[in-house]
This record gives sequence, C-alpha cells and structure tokens, in this order.
Amino acid sequence: MKKIRVCVVGFGNVGREAVECIRRAPGMKLAGVVRRAVGENHLDRPMVTRVEELGPVDVALLAVPSRLIPEVAPLYLQKGINTVDGYDLHGEPMLYLRDRLNRYAKKNERVAITGAGWDPGTDSVIRMLFEAVAPGGITYTDFGPGMSMGHSVAARSIPGVKDAVAMTLPLGYGRHRRDVYVELNKEADFAEIAEQIREDPYFDPDRTEVIQVDDLTPIKVTGHGVRIARAGSSGTAQNQLLELNMRITNPAATAQIMAAAARACMRLKPGCYVLGEVPPIDLLPVDREAAIQKLV
Amino acid sequence: MKKIRVCVVGFGNVGREAVECIRRAPGMKLAGVVRRAVGENHLDRPMVTRVEELGPVDVALLAVPSRLIPEVAPLYLQKGINTVDGYDLHGEPMLYLRDRLNRYAKKNERVAITGAGWDPGTDSVIRMLFEAVAPGGITYTDFGPGMSMGHSVAARSIPGVKDAVAMTLPLGYGRHRRDVYVELNKEADFAEIAEQIREDPYFDPDRTEVIQVDDLTPIKVTGHGVRIARAGSSGTAQNQLLELNMRITNPAATAQIMAAAARACMRLKPGCYVLGEVPPIDLLPVDREAAIQKLV
Repeated sequence: MKKIRVCVVGFGNVGREAVECIRRAPGMKLAGVVRRAVGENHLDRPMVTRVEELGPVDVALLAVPSRLIPEVAPLYLQKGINTVDGYDLHGEPMLYLRDRLNRYAKKNERVAITGAGWDPGTDSVIRMLFEAVAPGGITYTDFGPGMSMGHSVAARSIPGVKDAVAMTLPLGYGRHRRDVYVELNKEADFAEIAEQIREDPYFDPDRTEVIQVDDLTPIKVTGHGVRIARAGSSGTAQNQLLELNMRITNPAATAQIMAAAARACMRLKPGCYVLGEVPPIDLLPVDREAAIQKLV
Repeated sequence: MKKIRVCVVGFGNVGREAVECIRRAPGMKLAGVVRRAVGENHLDRPMVTRVEELGPVDVALLAVPSRLIPEVAPLYLQKGINTVDGYDLHGEPMLYLRDRLNRYAKKNERVAITGAGWDPGTDSVIRMLFEAVAPGGITYTDFGPGMSMGHSVAARSIPGVKDAVAMTLPLGYGRHRRDVYVELNKEADFAEIAEQIREDPYFDPDRTEVIQVDDLTPIKVTGHGVRIARAGSSGTAQNQLLELNMRITNPAATAQIMAAAARACMRLKPGCYVLGEVPPIDLLPVDREAAIQKLV
C-alpha cells in the first residue's frame, strides 16, 4: 500500500512530537519539516523553508500558533495539499475557520481537518457521545492542572514580561483558577504587570493570581489533564453518569491526534471537517474490518 | 423540518425505553410499535403486528434479541425502512452481520446501523478514540457490577431453571466474575444445574458461581457500568492515561443510543455501519453548526 507522505509545518513542542508520531505511524512517511528559518537539522529528513522542496506531499500537519492557521492553511490547500491543524479556539472563531477552509478545500478538491487536538478535538467528540447517550443534562469540562499554552502566550506578550507560565487549575464543574508565574525584565514593575495581566480580557481578575519567580525552568512541564463529566438522562432514566479522565503529555497528545487526522484526510470527501464530523474508525491505521474485529 | 418517523420493533426493556426516547427526541415522531402479539396498548400510538399498518416509516429500531437481528433487519431493509439495532456480539459475528446487512442496505438503498448500544457501540467509539490519542498500549474494558442480559438468557435456557440473573462483577483489567442467581422449578436438582451452567461455553467454570434463591425479584436491577482504561504512548510520551467511567440504567442507555443512530441513518449513504463508522456529530438532534458552536 502506498504510504501517506506527510510534512510538518513548524518545529515547536507540537511540531517536534509530530515528527516522532509520523515516524512511528504505520503507512506514513515523513516528507520533511517546513520552517520559517531552517536551523541545524538533526533529522534524517529534509528541513526546508518552502514545501515545494519536499517533493509530493499528501498532508501538511500545521504545528503553528492558532492565530496563524486561518492564513497558513489556505496556502497549502491551494497547492493541492490536505491540511490538519490543532486550532484551539472554540465556538464562533472555530466556525469561521471551518467555513473559510471549507471553501479553499472544496475549490482545490482537498480535505482540511481543523481543531484536531484534544480540546477542541477528541474532547469535543467525547462531549458529543455523552450527549447522544444522555441528551438531558449538563456536561462539565475541567482542565488541568497543567500549563495553558494560550494563557502563557497572552501573559508573555505584556511588555516587561521576559517569560510566563500560566497554570490552569481546576476548581471543579467548569470553573478554573489561573496561576501566572512570570519572569520579568530588570526594569519591570511587578505590581503594574500583575495588574495588567489580571485586567487582560483573556484572564478573569477574580480567579487570576500572578507570581514572580527568578527562573521559570523548573516550572515548565508539559503534562496536562482534563475531566469531562455529565450527569444526564436517557429516556426515563435520570441518573446516567458519564465521565472521562485524561492525564497526558500535552504536545504529544496533540501531535498524535493530528497524525491520526492526517490518515482520515485521505478517506474523506473534499471539504473542511472538525473531528466530530470524521468517522472515528478512519483515525486508525488499520482498515475498517480489522478495527471492528479488534475494537468493536 | 419534516420529522423522522420511527417505529420500535419489540416491547421489552429496551423497546419500552426506546418509545420514551423517541417521544422526547426533537425532530422525531413515534410511528408505533411492532410486536409479535399485540397485548393491551396503553400508548397513544398504534401497536401492531405488521409494520405496514403504521403507514410510512423512516427508521425501525430493532429492540429484539440479538440472535434475531440477522433475520429481522433484512425484512425491514427490503421494505425500504432503515434499521438500527443493538446487536451485542463482538468480533466475527459482528463483522458477519455488518456484511450481511450491508448487502441488503445497498440493494434497497437504505442505511442499517448495527451494534448501536453502549458495548458494542459508544464504548467501541471510545476505544477507537483512545487508540487514536495513544496508539501504543493496551485498553482494558471492565464491566459492571450489573446484570448481563446475554448471560442471564443463557442460564435461563437451561431446563429446570425458572428464571436467572447473571451478575457481571469486574475483577479489574478485563477479567470478570459471574454470579448467577437462579430460581428453579420444583423438580429441578440444584447441583446438577449449577454444573451445567458452569460448563456452558458462555461461562468460565473458574469464575462462575451459581446461587439458588427463592425469588429473583429483589435482585433484578437494570443498573450497569463500565470502566475503559488505557495507559498508552503518543509520540515520545510514554505515560498517557485515558479513562472512561459510566454508570447507567442499561436499557435506557441502549435505547437512547439507538434513537440517536436513527437520526444518523437519515444522513448517511446507503450501507451498513457500526457506530465507529458514523460521524459522531450526526448522532445529535441539532445541525452541525449548532453542535460545533455548543460542543467543540
């Protein structure tokens, strides 16, 4: 069977793991890595600045910051390359992106899978399944404890902040506390910066604590977790309890789900999909009969 | 929007709950119930012996014993009615049934969704998702404590057994004990029957205990549960922990998932599908955009 040729775009935490995931994935071949600037290359595969240098590519895993996805994904779709991204905004921005990529994907007869991480991503699929089993009720998603990439970036962007780590701490039933650890530049005023962070719309002043440290290195851990719980009803039954717990290394889980979605790209009709629109069986490296034999 | 007209075939524990689920489901209308013999009808919808008496029907929920599904489902597909069943055998029998129904569904341009309960069913989908997140590792499924319908039926079929309740008790990591409570006919010999049950291929003699009781009524509870756990690897990460816990009223969960699958029937191309082949979003009562807005 012909192997799927996959390239990784970006070489941060997720991009590096994506390279490992593709290497280990049956039926996939790493075409290479695309970066804005090519540094030293310790891979045995090419690292380039233009995807054209990699030869034919079936799927691009876009391991770039979420805010870049709306611009980067169309570039690949226009080149006839399917895309997978781990876009991590929910609701309206996600719908907007899906609609935008859907147009590019259909026009170029390619597939884009967006939000193919764990939340949004597999967690979204779990929430859908929980609603299918118990349509009445409320689902609560509790994240952490773990480092929030988005909130860390937001804190880091404040002038005077050298580096920041925003921890997401679950208070239970959908509420969270943020502990933001900051390393400051010499001239920076801690009290002022702490206030700026708490006033940033990304943070909730009531639930954000800012803590100054000399060195963030020992705090930076990529472990993360989630608990999704639903106490719902099905038919006449009023006490249906469903719960998912995950403790994961965050970039590895994200990259792995993106790699699985790359497989599904080859099996779907042109268009843009969120993970819940993809038959779960198409995420697996084996054919449908083998998957049913093993997992159903 | 036109409502989906659904009939329920069979009126046991699952059939009765299916009626309730359809009543409460947005966009669905209960066409009626089909039974082998019509008893007293307390529903405000018809109860008939032939589906033709119900007028147009889009989907039949087959709430009949698993062993009847291979024969009953084709009868409905041939009448141009989509089918959903909660067939509960795994592996080869499931593959055989899917293949059989696939032929009937394609020939009649209809959709059959098979194994649309919770295990096989939503549990199978969870196992697929867990493998997609962490392809390395082993998944353990632990059932119970709860009454196994299949094992209870097997015990009940032994001559001399008036009624039986087989409890599934999780010993952890995929192993189970069966406690089989039996109510015997007057002339029956308990020791002999206990041996017959333990020797039945459906039961494991090392892990089956048979207990005689005078009255099974207080033991019959339809609560059940499952824990699915995977400690796996994604990319370089070797400690990815994923766990699902459910505690449910069993017939209500099964019926509810079947009702959700009825919805998906209207959105799929002709053929037979297991639940893992169905985009999870199509199980929900709202359109895709609304589901993404709420759940992704």
